[in-house]
This record gives sequence, structure tokens and C-alpha cells, in this order.
Amino acid sequence: MSSSLTIYNSLSGKTELFKSISPNKVGMYVCGPTVYNNVHLGNCRTFISFDLIYRYLIHLGYKVRYVRNITDVGHLEYDEDQGEDRISKKARSESIEPMEVVQKYTIDFHKTLSKFNLFPPSIEPTATGHIIDQIEFIKKIIDAGYAYEINNSVYFDVLKFNKKHKYGKLSGRNIEDLIHNTRDLDGVSDKKNPQDFALWKKAELIHIMKWPSPWGEGFPGWHLECSAMSSKYLGDKFDIHGGGMDLKFPHHECEIAQSESINKVSPVKYWVHANMLTLNGKKMSKSTGNNILPGEIFSGKNKIFKKPFKPEVVKFFIMQAHYRSVLDISEDALNASEKGYNKLISALKLLDNINPSKKDTSFNFDDWNKKCYSALNDDFNSPVLIANLFDAVKFINSVNNNLDNISAATLIKLKTSFKAFVNDILGLYGNFSSSYDEKKLKDILNILIELRSSSRKNKDFETSDKIRNELNKIGIKLEDNTDETEIRLN
Amino acid sequence: MSSSLTIYNSLSGKTELFKSISPNKVGMYVCGPTVYNNVHLGNCRTFISFDLIYRYLIHLGYKVRYVRNITDVGHLEYDEDQGEDRISKKARSESIEPMEVVQKYTIDFHKTLSKFNLFPPSIEPTATGHIIDQIEFIKKIIDAGYAYEINNSVYFDVLKFNKKHKYGKLSGRNIEDLIHNTRDLDGVSDKKNPQDFALWKKAELIHIMKWPSPWGEGFPGWHLECSAMSSKYLGDKFDIHGGGMDLKFPHHECEIAQSESINKVSPVKYWVHANMLTLNGKKMSKSTGNNILPGEIFSGKNKIFKKPFKPEVVKFFIMQAHYRSVLDISEDALNASEKGYNKLISALKLLDNINPSKKDTSFNFDDWNKKCYSALNDDFNSPVLIANLFDAVKFINSVNNNLDNISAATLIKLKTSFKAFVNDILGLYGNFSSSYDEKKLKDILNILIELRSSSRKNKDFETSDKIRNELNKIGIKLEDNTDETEIRLN
Repeated sequence: MSSSLTIYNSLSGKTELFKSISPNKVGMYVCGPTVYNNVHLGNCRTFISFDLIYRYLIHLGYKVRYVRNITDVGHLEYDEDQGEDRISKKARSESIEPMEVVQKYTIDFHKTLSKFNLFPPSIEPTATGHIIDQIEFIKKIIDAGYAYEINNSVYFDVLKFNKKHKYGKLSGRNIEDLIHNTRDLDGVSDKKNPQDFALWKKAELIHIMKWPSPWGEGFPGWHLECSAMSSKYLGDKFDIHGGGMDLKFPHHECEIAQSESINKVSPVKYWVHANMLTLNGKKMSKSTGNNILPGEIFSGKNKIFKKPFKPEVVKFFIMQAHYRSVLDISEDALNASEKGYNKLISALKLLDNINPSKKDTSFNFDDWNKKCYSALNDDFNSPVLIANLFDAVKFINSVNNNLDNISAATLIKLKTSFKAFVNDILGLYGNFSSSYDEKKLKDILNILIELRSSSRKNKDFETSDKIRNELNKIGIKLEDNTDETEIRLN
Repeated sequence: MSSSLTIYNSLSGKTELFKSISPNKVGMYVCGPTVYNNVHLGNCRTFISFDLIYRYLIHLGYKVRYVRNITDVGHLEYDEDQGEDRISKKARSESIEPMEVVQKYTIDFHKTLSKFNLFPPSIEPTATGHIIDQIEFIKKIIDAGYAYEINNSVYFDVLKFNKKHKYGKLSGRNIEDLIHNTRDLDGVSDKKNPQDFALWKKAELIHIMKWPSPWGEGFPGWHLECSAMSSKYLGDKFDIHGGGMDLKFPHHECEIAQSESINKVSPVKYWVHANMLTLNGKKMSKSTGNNILPGEIFSGKNKIFKKPFKPEVVKFFIMQAHYRSVLDISEDALNASEKGYNKLISALKLLDNINPSKKDTSFNFDDWNKKCYSALNDDFNSPVLIANLFDAVKFINSVNNNLDNISAATLIKLKTSFKAFVNDILGLYGNFSSSYDEKKLKDILNILIELRSSSRKNKDFETSDKIRNELNKIGIKLEDNTDETEIRLN
């Protein structure tokens, strides 16, 4: 299977056959979160997309080293910005130390991704944990002649780099246009040219997070950590580099420049970018209120949707679009996904209960299975895979209703494949246990409530009282209102 | 309340009145795990003990900054050891990179502690994340004259330190005895004296984890990270330093020497040490097989105990001993704790259901409440607190059985206090939800199974078949054997 996997490479703008640099091994780096706030849903979409890629590569038999960083240095948003960085700002507003901010939001990040049933990466390096590596990286760029020190800061010389290499090849930007469009906002920058970017910034007095360096006390530039950490753990040239579409420029472009300036080769074979998530047709934004956090969706405590949706439903919704398409989340769309998800999982469960027959079947397993793999091999096309899965769902339901047949041999193959797609590759079932326990609990409870109400109808008050009392003993109170029974769980 | 808290201080060997350095603020540092293996049960006891301390200090109204480190540099166990460090060794045996070992066991550590319902610390710094701070710390010790460089390693000069300060004051060891008892194992050590310890070690070729430094490529000594990180996040003098008893010497003794050598003051006001956990009367040890991991206890998959025990039961068992006593874990002890735990939680739940009366009560709430706080104020005496809680349990059960009375006002006070002790301070209930869902699920299921079997006895096969079919629909199969009904959950 592995030989036919194709991936859309942002660098070439083409879908290419995937061929790993070392046989059977894949190195993948994905830009992780800046932990100064709760992880937002758009980021979750990115990480869910790369989880699918990670899982499918593992399924194909690759040994994958998946590195995803934690940005815990609160970078300035613009080089020109002389004020506080984002983590220090947050620390001051919450009146705690920067590393407490980091701890709080790293925990939130891990908790949220684990609710979505994502595999943790193989290595999760932090920017603060790799200051030395970043300093060493800067020294090499200076030695290669592509960076200059000025007033205790170090900048990357984009124009000089562009003379020998091409700056802008990932984002398709032209250096002349960049020069034309970049303005020196305040005129006080130390940079030779406004296109240059910081590798090391002198720490102003207001900065809390700073380290000693050959250029004085300061902190690394925004783009540097990913170059330093990806090369440390994956080598100077590795297979896949991923991230959100918004990171293509300038972040990934600068990563390429940093690595190429010292290694002469492009650091990444396949650049992969996940697209945006919009909410009700508009860009998500805190300031306009068109914004929702994952936790708010799961709990239902939000002003956007009328009811809660479970992580597995949100994840299924995200998988129903291809990772390179813009996706719009809305209540209607989530309701539809919820129905679809339940249908898919019901079929999954039915597979363990349906009985094979000796008769022939209308279902061509090999053909179906091939189509599923073709979808995945076509740049991880999860919506097409899911459409194929629903063809199987239809068939499974027909067999269950005795409208179709399945032989024992086909049943085993179907069961194995269907579970591999739903559980292992899409990661849609199996590790959302708590919500499942809850659902099962309610299902069983409903059987009891129904039994009790039929006992009461039949004037069998002995049974109905017994059910009520036994439930009471384990902390579940039933309150009979005029038209329905209300349940209170302690 | 806070003014009467007392803590046993290992440094003075006395129980002292607790007075924080800054009013209303507490800085606490606890030595965390070395992440090269699954966290062992003895370590869990230590972290459970400090979680109680953390929770009680918060309850008393202190703003606590709790720092617990992750040791992800695989230190050599002895300075003399020129071989591989523990994390590199593990990496080689699992044929992955050291940081993959770190990631794997950091995840295990977090998962296990969260099963025990421990609060995460405020900051969780890693040793690799603070190499620069450690290098800066060494420079200061060299400047102060208490360390020397030799062959690209740096050692702390214990004898010189002992001339002005006292080395051994925490562990009560005498420098002359140490000199007498320490042998230079292989005779090839670079150290001036065998008592000296490494601050920076030259990396041999075999070392994977190494960093550049003013003394060449190498890695920090075992004792250094805690001094560097505690002073960074809590200042040169902070309130509480904790860890397992086994860390008192040499680790904590060396920490004191490192900090005192540059700051002239003892770094910690209260040194707190949690005692050992033995298994069936013997020291836990992998090599003898007298060993069990937390996960093996929860799952029941082990050769030591016949049945599984839940995290909350194991935690309750640990809380039933004072943190400074040696505690022995055994199946009998866990069975007893399980009964006790269930009794405690039943009473907790009953509190929401019992009805107050106008009559007087035999229960003196104020007296009881005072005794509970006295226990906690007496060096966090959890077993005495639990004994007091059981006095309340007895009373609650009496009220529930109409053998005693409680007024509405007392009920509110009792409810508030009892929940504060059990939920907030001991952390024994409320966040073990998944196991509770499971327990509740089984409880409800048992009511249904019992109803079905009485229906069958009464020859009401309509009802018994209905129950069986309804359960089947939601994926629960009942199989009737000769003497009992077996349940299969999908």
C-alpha cells in the first residue's frame, strides 16, 4: 500500500508520490501551540489532521518519529514591537509567573487533545528547553555569513540570502514585492532591511523570560525554535513538516531560510498545511465574539450552539472535510455530523452481532477496501473514506435486517478493515470511554425507567417501588411529575 | 487556623510552628521523578503526601507556588560511573532516542498521578530546559571558590565548604565519618577528594545527551538542577522543600551546600521528607520480583494481589498512614481500606439525603471540627483526621437510621466541613469520575439482572425476555450458565 500514497506538497504546489528519505522511517515535525491561552478550535483542527496522517503512516508500517513543539517563549508578534511578549503579558494580567502561564495552558492543551483521542507525539520539545540549541544555530548562521549582530540583537539577512538561494519559494512570494510592501513601522528598527527577521532579540527591562547569550541577555526570535528542534531530533533533512496554513508565511519561509543558509539543502521534503476553520461563515475572533473553545462545545456552556456536542462528534465533523479545504462549523453541520457519527458507530457495533450465512453477498469487499485505501492514499482524503464507510454501513444494516447476506469469510475481512479505518486510522472510537460509559449508563437506566412505568400501568406497585428504592440506594432519585419521570443523579 | 499549623522539619529534627517567609504566600519545591521508567508506587506515595500538604495550604488561604521538576537528564548514578546514563541506556534498549524515552515516561507519570486525583504543580520545570541556569549556577560556585574544574568536569569542593559551613546538617552526617566511609571505587576519579560531587561532567563519546559549556561538552551533575530551578522560581530562600526520605542524603545535602556556597544562607526553611512504602513487609525491588506498578494494581494484572484495587482506594490506604511513617502495602490492608473507603463515601453521599429534625443532636459539631483541624495542623496527620471522619460517619449513619437527630443548621455545617476534608483536602472523591461511572453502571445493571432473575422465578418470561432483549440492543449480552448469569459488554 505504502508505495501508492500521495501527498500534496505546498512547496511544489503538486500532489506527489510519497517516498520517505530512509526506507520504512518517517520524520515528521508539526508546529505546536503557543501556550499563553486555551487552545483554540482552529488549532485543534490542525492537530487532528496531522494525527490522521501520523496514524495512517503507522498503519502503513512506517516507523514514525513525530515531533511537535510547545512554544513557551512568549514571542513578540512583530520584530518592531518593543513591548511585552505574549506570555509575560498574560502572566502580568493573571498576576502569576510566565512559567505558571505555560504550565496552565500546556495542561489545557494536552487535556483537550486527549479528549479528541489524538496520539501524543514521539517527542514534544519546548522552546525554553532548547535555548542552547538555538544559540548554537545562530552562531552557525553568523559563521555562514547570513546574519549580523547589531545592538545586542541578531538578524537574518534576507536580501543576502536571496542572492544565492530563493527566499519566498514556499509561499510563492517575490522578494521585490516584499520589499515594496514592507514598511518600517516606527523607523527605530536596528535592521538593515525591513524584510530581515530577528534570530536573537535583546531583552528590554520589561522582559521576564530572558537568557544569557554571546550577544547579551535576550531571547530567541520566533522562527528559530522550529529549525533548531526539528534538525536536532529529525536531522538536517526530514520527510514532512506540517502546520496551519497561516504559518506558511513568514514562519515556515523563515525556517527554510535559516536551515538552508547553513546546510545548503532545503530542510523538508514534503510541506503540508492544514486549512482554516470558520464559525458560522466568518473568521473566528475573540474580539467580535464569533469564537468558541473546544471545552465550551463539549460542555454546552456557550452562546453559539444550543446544545453540547461530544469530542468524537466534533472530530468526525472535522474528518468529514479534507484537511486542505476551508471548513465552516455551525450547529446544523454538527447536528448532521452527530447523526452520521451515531450511524457509523452503530454499524461498527452491529458487526460483532450479525450472523454470517452461506449465501452469496451483494457486497464486493475487495473493491470496497481498495476504494477506502485509494481515498487515504489520495492525500489523506478522509471525506471520501467516510463516504465509502457509509456504503459499508448501508450494507451492514441490510444484513442485520435480513435483506442481504454475508459469508463468514467476508464478515471477518469487513470487520477487520472497518475497525482499522474507524478506530485505528480515523481514531473515532475506542478511547472516548468516559462519554461512552455515560451513554451506556443512560441506556441501561432508561430500560429500568421503562420497566417501572409499565409495572405502574399494570398496577404492579411492588415492582415499581422496588426499582425506585433500589435506585435510591445507589444515589439515583426518581421524581414523578405529572407527565414524566425526572432523574436526579448524585 | 493557619497560625496553628505545625510541620516536622527534617533540618531541626523538630515539629515547628509554620510561619511562611512572606505573609499568605508559600513557595514549595518537591523533587519530581526521573522519567526513564514507569513511576513506581513509592514515588506515588511521596507525591500523594505533598498533594495533601499543597491542598491543605491552599485550604488555609495561602497562595502557594508549587514547583515539581522532571528529571529528564539521565544522570549517572555515581560520579565514578563513566558509562551510559540511565535515560540513554533505556533509549538504547528500546532503540529510540532519549527524548522519546522522556516523552513516554512523562506521559505515564502524568497519567498515573491524575488517576490518583493529584493537583498538578504550578510549575513543572525540566532539567534539560534549564541547562543555561545550571551553567550560570556553576559559574557562581566557582566564583565563590567552592568548585574546581579538572579535565573538562567541575566538582564541588566539599571539604573546603565544610570549613566555613557545615556539610551534613540535614542528614546528621559527620564529615569525618564520610571521609572514613567513602572509598574511591576505581582510583581513576579526577576529584580532589572522594566526598566531592560533580557539578558538570565531561561527556564521554557514548553520551547522547550533552550540551556545550565553558568547560566543554558535557552535562550537569545530579544535584544541580534542583538548586538551579528552585532558586529560579522560588528565590534564594523559600518555605518548603520536599521529597522522598531516600533523597535526604546525598541529594538534598548537596543542594544545601550548592546554594549556601553562593548565597551564604540556608535555602530552605522547612525540609519535609515522606517515608518509604514496603510491599508485603519487604522493600520493593524489581530484581526480587517484590514489586508492583500503580497501573498493575488498578487493572488487577499482577502476580501480587488477587483482585484489582481502584486508585481512590490505594490513595485512601496511603492517607491512612502518616507520611513520615513507613507504610506496608498488602492485599489484606487494601481490602480493609476498600471497605473503609466505601463506608466513608456512602456517608458522604448520605449527607445529601438525610433529613434534619428540630430535635437536639448528640453530635458536638464544633468539637469534632476542631479535632479534624487539629489533626491536620499536627504535621498533616491524615490518619487521625480519617479517624475523626469515621466518628462523623457513625453519626451520619445513625441519623439515617433514625437513631439520632441533626438540626438543619448543624447539617449544613457538617456537610460543608465533611466535604471540605474528603473532597478538597484529602482529594478522595469528585475527580475519579470514570471509575464512578463504571461503578454506577454496574450498580444499575445489577438491579436489572436481579429484576430479571425474580421475573424468571415468577415465570414472568415476558418481562425477563424483555430485559434480555433491551440489553442486547445496547450491546450488553447476558449468558445464563447453570448457576449464574454472565454479562458481556461490547
